[in-house]
Amino acid sequence: MQDVLIIGAGFSGIAAGKKLHEAGKSFLILEARDRIGGRVYTKRWEDGFYLDLGGQWIGPTQDRMYELCQEFGIDYFETYDTGKNLLDLNQRIRSFSGLIPKMDIISLVNLDWLMKKMEKMAASIDPISPWSHPKAKEYDSISLEAFISQNCKTKACKKVIRLACETVFASEMNEISLLHALFYIRSGTDLNTLVSIKNGAQLHRIQGGMGSVAERMCKPFENSILFSHAVSSVKQSDDSVTVFTENNSFTAKKLIIAIPPPLAAKINFNPILPANKRQVMDRIAMGQVGKCFMVYKKPFWRDKGFSGQVLADEHSPFQTLFDASPKDGSMGIILGFTIAERCRAYFKLSKENRQKAMEKQLVSYFGPEASNPTRYEDFTMTDEAWSRGCYAGLYPTGAWTGFQDAYRATNGHIHWAGTEAATRWFGYIEGAVLAGEKAATDIVLALADTGD
Amino acid sequence: MQDVLIIGAGFSGIAAGKKLHEAGKSFLILEARDRIGGRVYTKRWEDGFYLDLGGQWIGPTQDRMYELCQEFGIDYFETYDTGKNLLDLNQRIRSFSGLIPKMDIISLVNLDWLMKKMEKMAASIDPISPWSHPKAKEYDSISLEAFISQNCKTKACKKVIRLACETVFASEMNEISLLHALFYIRSGTDLNTLVSIKNGAQLHRIQGGMGSVAERMCKPFENSILFSHAVSSVKQSDDSVTVFTENNSFTAKKLIIAIPPPLAAKINFNPILPANKRQVMDRIAMGQVGKCFMVYKKPFWRDKGFSGQVLADEHSPFQTLFDASPKDGSMGIILGFTIAERCRAYFKLSKENRQKAMEKQLVSYFGPEASNPTRYEDFTMTDEAWSRGCYAGLYPTGAWTGFQDAYRATNGHIHWAGTEAATRWFGYIEGAVLAGEKAATDIVLALADTGD
Repeated sequence: MQDVLIIGAGFSGIAAGKKLHEAGKSFLILEARDRIGGRVYTKRWEDGFYLDLGGQWIGPTQDRMYELCQEFGIDYFETYDTGKNLLDLNQRIRSFSGLIPKMDIISLVNLDWLMKKMEKMAASIDPISPWSHPKAKEYDSISLEAFISQNCKTKACKKVIRLACETVFASEMNEISLLHALFYIRSGTDLNTLVSIKNGAQLHRIQGGMGSVAERMCKPFENSILFSHAVSSVKQSDDSVTVFTENNSFTAKKLIIAIPPPLAAKINFNPILPANKRQVMDRIAMGQVGKCFMVYKKPFWRDKGFSGQVLADEHSPFQTLFDASPKDGSMGIILGFTIAERCRAYFKLSKENRQKAMEKQLVSYFGPEASNPTRYEDFTMTDEAWSRGCYAGLYPTGAWTGFQDAYRATNGHIHWAGTEAATRWFGYIEGAVLAGEKAATDIVLALADTGD
Repeated sequence: MQDVLIIGAGFSGIAAGKKLHEAGKSFLILEARDRIGGRVYTKRWEDGFYLDLGGQWIGPTQDRMYELCQEFGIDYFETYDTGKNLLDLNQRIRSFSGLIPKMDIISLVNLDWLMKKMEKMAASIDPISPWSHPKAKEYDSISLEAFISQNCKTKACKKVIRLACETVFASEMNEISLLHALFYIRSGTDLNTLVSIKNGAQLHRIQGGMGSVAERMCKPFENSILFSHAVSSVKQSDDSVTVFTENNSFTAKKLIIAIPPPLAAKINFNPILPANKRQVMDRIAMGQVGKCFMVYKKPFWRDKGFSGQVLADEHSPFQTLFDASPKDGSMGIILGFTIAERCRAYFKLSKENRQKAMEKQLVSYFGPEASNPTRYEDFTMTDEAWSRGCYAGLYPTGAWTGFQDAYRATNGHIHWAGTEAATRWFGYIEGAVLAGEKAATDIVLALADTGD
């Protein structure tokens, strides 16, 4: 019998494994896919070309991620952030510098006021217990959309806030509760951090791709990861947990579940999980985001004074674009994020037409050179059966106040990890690592208590 | 190879089976439980006592249900609706007649105005395509709670509307979008119909329990129902569908899925279902309701001039109470509905304390005789692994406009039934029957087209 079983070899499951390995506990990680990383996925082609199709950034206060890079000697580098940004609004393209786009003065004042208001509201939320806020019920009864609508006095302001929020949450604003949005912001420090490259969550990229961090982390226990082991059911007894896959079963003293909530909801539990756990799992859907990469011989936009960053209203398939070229600039890559409704529409097109649609946007921003890419790739975790979406689980109105910490609460020998169990950096890789480490630490302590 | 496989032997699956049987098609119904009925469950004790622990009422315009009763000679009778109703509000119990409780005049005017406003808004929704309404985006961006809060000028008005809405939707008002509420009302005719006994959805009960309708419906093909056959995966090819259970597999030309959305979301599909189907399934959680029955030698409250109907604010565990005595009045039964947050709190108590809590309420309403019950029973579908809740799936904000008819849309050879696939009487048994019959009819037509 193992000490621990872990379901899911994403960053959270691997971080848990690393902690258990260091504590000398025996464990197995059961992974449904044939790869590690979960919502992080560095795809490598035969010619050495690679892309981060999933999570790719780290930034200040994501301390564990920087510590892991340091521990394994993994290089990271700054996201390209030099030159003019573009705002594509109402069929007009305007350049701007810094974080705040050029708009009419009323919209600018409105935007500044509203961002400060959201910062203030988010700062008042305790990320450990968002439901304990004096106005939690009120905030949890309206969608982020309703709140933004009430507080935007101009259409331009609303368009910019909307595309920023869609990019941050990977959802339509009407799909999440205001309380969830405020919790999410607070758990990732503040809104300014979440939307920024400089001093923000998009500051650094990993040399070799984010996947290499996961690979290095699990190196000492890579033989403990069983691939193509999708878990169908879990049976808990007084002193053990048995996990069933299609052809096998495994028993351990403790279990860590480190997968997205909609996938956890697919597992049959015996005995049945508490009502609040089941109900909250059924309420949390995943965000929807597509990452689209247009590759060029060179980052030609840089020479023209463009940063590669674009914010665009709904007439573009992409809320935001970034320069995703390799550190040495040996080729040029523009990364487009297509999110929620735009993502749904975009991926209804054929791949050929998706490439055309992206090219058209890029030509309008960076000129005719944009029509000569060397390669186009795109990807959405929505189509991955073992992720069901990205970046993270969305709490709709009523879920935080109705079910509180039910999702992350331990159930007997079953501990919960994954970024949705995090209170710090919920929705980010850092959150996944923190939640995985916490589950492992809790288990090490529990086993010590029982003399195991 | 069968013509058709049906997953789920609730009313929808059985109604589909009945249609297929009548059309001479071969089929099997795979049921996870060891009983039929799904969210309808007539429990019978050895002494002949029985209770409808699930769906129990039918009412005007639920035409198929009345036709089925007629076809099988099943008796139905009117819900007891004579005498004074009670309103338990702000720790004061007041009696009233008819639908509208006694309150201060401002609250009454507010309540009347708001109900008319909701009736008018619901009447403007096309239940086939709620997302096509000119204000669909607006209605789908706010929760029912936010709308009600904006339109209630007194606390008493809000309390009464709240308990009525909670009873109708089996959820907190902040868990569903306004658009879903309006769609649900429209799909069930109008608000007045949904909240009423007289001329409403609570008009008739079934002699012998609602389960007897399902039993009679499937009598001719009862050997085609395979119990304890939970489906884990579905594989679709060009000309057939194969369904896998733990120990078996079954192949047919077509498949009907007639189970609650969160259970459909648990099945692995190969090839993967379209993104919109997966995403909408992940968004639909189930309502939460507990049915609590206090049984007495006689319906003693009737002699005191009480109808047994009570509306109560949040200091009671029960939003609403009804007289659920048998037709002949040979014993007295009060049925309490505990919903959403009240349900979650109530079922944290031991059964003994639940009975005490209900007794206390009943004594306060009907006097000391209420403290001498002969029996207490309660039940919540939330705890049933193969229902996950009741009455129906809840659409949160953003889901109807974001995913439109994705839930009920056919995917290759896979047709979707269950009350959540209904456009008429969504959430009700009538809707389940209509959706099951539609799926079967569509398949009979499709098989005729291909010459099968």
